[in-house]
Amino acid sequence: MSATTQSLKLAVIPGDGIGTEVTAEALKVLEVVMPADVKFEPTRYDLGAERYLATGEVLPDSVLEEIRQHDVILLGAVGGKPNDPNLPPGILERGLLLRLRFELDHYVNLRPSRIFPGSVSPLANPGEVDFVVVREGTEGPYTGNGGALRVGTPQEVATEVSVNTAFGVERVVRDAFARAQRRPRKKLTLVHKTNVLVNAGSVWWRLFQEVAAEYPEVSTDYMHIDAAMIFMTTDPARFDVIVTDNLFGDIITDLAAAVTGGIGLAASGNVNPDRTAPSMFEPVHGSAPDIAGQQKADPTAAILSVSLMLDHLGLTEAAQKVEAAVIADLASREPGAALSTPEIGDRIAARVAG
Amino acid sequence: MSATTQSLKLAVIPGDGIGTEVTAEALKVLEVVMPADVKFEPTRYDLGAERYLATGEVLPDSVLEEIRQHDVILLGAVGGKPNDPNLPPGILERGLLLRLRFELDHYVNLRPSRIFPGSVSPLANPGEVDFVVVREGTEGPYTGNGGALRVGTPQEVATEVSVNTAFGVERVVRDAFARAQRRPRKKLTLVHKTNVLVNAGSVWWRLFQEVAAEYPEVSTDYMHIDAAMIFMTTDPARFDVIVTDNLFGDIITDLAAAVTGGIGLAASGNVNPDRTAPSMFEPVHGSAPDIAGQQKADPTAAILSVSLMLDHLGLTEAAQKVEAAVIADLASREPGAALSTPEIGDRIAARVAG
Ligand SMILES: CC(C)[C@H](C(=O)O)[C@@H](O)C(=O)O
Ligand SMILES: CC(C)[C@H](C(=O)O)[C@@H](O)C(=O)O
Repeated sequence: MSATTQSLKLAVIPGDGIGTEVTAEALKVLEVVMPADVKFEPTRYDLGAERYLATGEVLPDSVLEEIRQHDVILLGAVGGKPNDPNLPPGILERGLLLRLRFELDHYVNLRPSRIFPGSVSPLANPGEVDFVVVREGTEGPYTGNGGALRVGTPQEVATEVSVNTAFGVERVVRDAFARAQRRPRKKLTLVHKTNVLVNAGSVWWRLFQEVAAEYPEVSTDYMHIDAAMIFMTTDPARFDVIVTDNLFGDIITDLAAAVTGGIGLAASGNVNPDRTAPSMFEPVHGSAPDIAGQQKADPTAAILSVSLMLDHLGLTEAAQKVEAAVIADLASREPGAALSTPEIGDRIAARVAG
Repeated sequence: MSATTQSLKLAVIPGDGIGTEVTAEALKVLEVVMPADVKFEPTRYDLGAERYLATGEVLPDSVLEEIRQHDVILLGAVGGKPNDPNLPPGILERGLLLRLRFELDHYVNLRPSRIFPGSVSPLANPGEVDFVVVREGTEGPYTGNGGALRVGTPQEVATEVSVNTAFGVERVVRDAFARAQRRPRKKLTLVHKTNVLVNAGSVWWRLFQEVAAEYPEVSTDYMHIDAAMIFMTTDPARFDVIVTDNLFGDIITDLAAAVTGGIGLAASGNVNPDRTAPSMFEPVHGSAPDIAGQQKADPTAAILSVSLMLDHLGLTEAAQKVEAAVIADLASREPGAALSTPEIGDRIAARVAG
C-alpha cells in the first residue's frame, strides 16, 4: 500500500501586535499534531496595521485572490494603536477582516464557549457551561450600508443600515439547527430584538420557525438580546446553541468569553459551510497593542482555533488531540502563575506530542 | 406666612402584568414621602397589552395629548404573553413605550447601577459598583426607519436604519458630561462600535471629543460595545458615567442590572432635560407575564424610579429619603426570604414614614 500524503494549503495572516505572537504558538502546535499523511503548506501574508501604515495597502485584490486559492486560513489579530491619527477607525476592520469574511462568504461565525477545568470565571456560580454561538457573518449591521450627510457640521446625519435577507438568514439558521441536532442537549436559542427591530426581527423569526418544523427533536427558545445579557450572567449553563445576527453575535460572544474565563480562551471559526472558499480561523481577541511585544498574551485561543480548523478539515482526531491538550494544560496551570506566550505554546505542544 | 401648596400632575401608566403590581407599591411609597407642601394629582391611564387586546387601541392621539399636559409620568411595564398571535411583536413597544419616549423627546434615558449593601451580584468579586448609563433615547436603531421587501418570500430583504444626527448626539453627550462633572470621580466612557459602524461612530466620536474640550476636569475613555461586555463582568467598578447609543444602551443596562444584583432593582428615567414635555420614570424590567398576578415581583425598581422622579422634580430630600429607605430595606432582607410585592412596598413605606 503506497502512502498518499494529503497536502493542504494554509494561508497564515499573523496580523499585528499579539496576533503574531499567538499565531507562532498556534503553528507550533499544528506542526506537532499533524498525522504523518497530512502536510500543511503555509504561506504567510503580512497584512494589518503595520503594512497599512508602511504602504497604504489594506488588502490588495491580488492578495485576496491568492488567499482564495488556499484550503484554509489562520488569522492572528489585526489592529494598530487606538486613536492613531494615521489609522482611521474601521479601515482595517472593514477593509481586511470583514472584507475577508464577506468575500469568502463566511456566513457561519462559529464561537464555542466552555468553562474548562481550571479556567477562572468571574461568576460566583457559573455551573457547567458548554455552548456554541452561531453568529451570522455576512449581513446585518456589518454590511457597510448607510452613509453620512453634511459630515462635520451641526447638521450631520449619519446612518447605518442593517441588511437582512431571507437567503442569508435561512442558511445560517439551517446550520445552527443542524449543529443543535448533533449535540446531546439539542437546544437552540434565537437571540434578536424582534420587539424593536421589527423588520429584521420578523424575517429571523419566520425562518427560525420554518426551519424548526424540520427539526422536531431540537427544542427551541427565543430571547431578546437584552434578556440574553441577564441569562448569560445568571445562568449561562442553560445555553446549548445560540443563533443570532452579526452585531448581537459580536456582543454576546465577548460576554460569553468573559463569563467562561476570558477572551484569552475564546476561539472562533469564520466558516463557509458550502466550501466555495476557504474558511478562516482566529481567536476572538484583538491585537492588544498595550501588551504587544511582551510575550504576555495567552495563545490558548489561537491554539483552540487550530482545533476548530482541524475539525473543519475533517481531521477530527487531530482536532480532539489539540483540545484535550489545552484542557489538560489549563487544569495544570497554577492559579496566578504568569506564563509567557511561548511557555504556554510549548506546554500544549509537548502534551500533543507526548 | 401662608402655606402655599405645590401641585404636580402625575400621569400613571401601570401597564400589564407585574407592571400594575409594582406601580401600586411605588405609589404607596410616594404617598408617604411627600412633604406637606407638595401634592401629587395622579391620573391613571390604562394602556398596554390588555387595552390593545380588548379595544385595538395602543396610544390614541387624544390620550397622548392628555398625558403631555402632566408634569411627570410614572410607568410600570407593558407587554403581553410572548408569542400571542393577537399581539404582533413591537406593536406595544413601538406604538406605546417608544412612541412616548420619542414624542415627549426623552433623549436622556438615565439608568443608574449600583451594588447596594445586601444585593446579591452573580459576580464573585464585583467591587464597589456605582455608575450611571446615559442612553440616548430618541435616535439610533430605534427610529423605526427601514422596511421590508418581498415579505414572506425567499427573496425577502428587511432593513433597519440607525439614524444618528449631530443634533441628537451632541445634546445627550452634553448631558453626560454635565453629569460626570457633578460626580466625585468625574469619569465618562463612550461606548460604541466605531470600528464597524463608521458613519454613526464618527459622529459620536467627533462630538464626544468636541464637548470633552469644554470639560477639562472630566477624564474620558472609549470602549467598543464588545469590550464593554468584558469590563462589565470583570471590573464593573471602573465605570462612573457611560454614554452610548439607544441600542447599545439597551443591551449594556440589562447587563449592568444583572451584575449589580438583578433587574428587580434597576430603575430608569426617560428624561427630557429641556422640560418641553413631561419626563417618564419606569423600572427597567418588563411585565413578566410568567409571574403576573402572583404578587411575587420585586417592586424595588419601581420604587427607585420614584426616587429618580422626585430628584428630577427638584424634590431632592424626598428622593434621598426613598433611596435611603430602599438601601436600608435591602440590607435588612434575609437572604433567601421570599417577600411578596406588597410586603416589600410596606417595608419601604414604613421606613420612609418612620
Ligand atoms: C474587530 C471587529 C471588526 C470584529 C467584529 O466586530 O466582528 C471583532 O470584534 C470580532 O468579534 O471578531
Ligand atoms: C421594551 C423595549 C422596547 C425596551 C427597549 O428596548 O428600550 C426595554 O428593553 C427597555 O430597556 O426599556
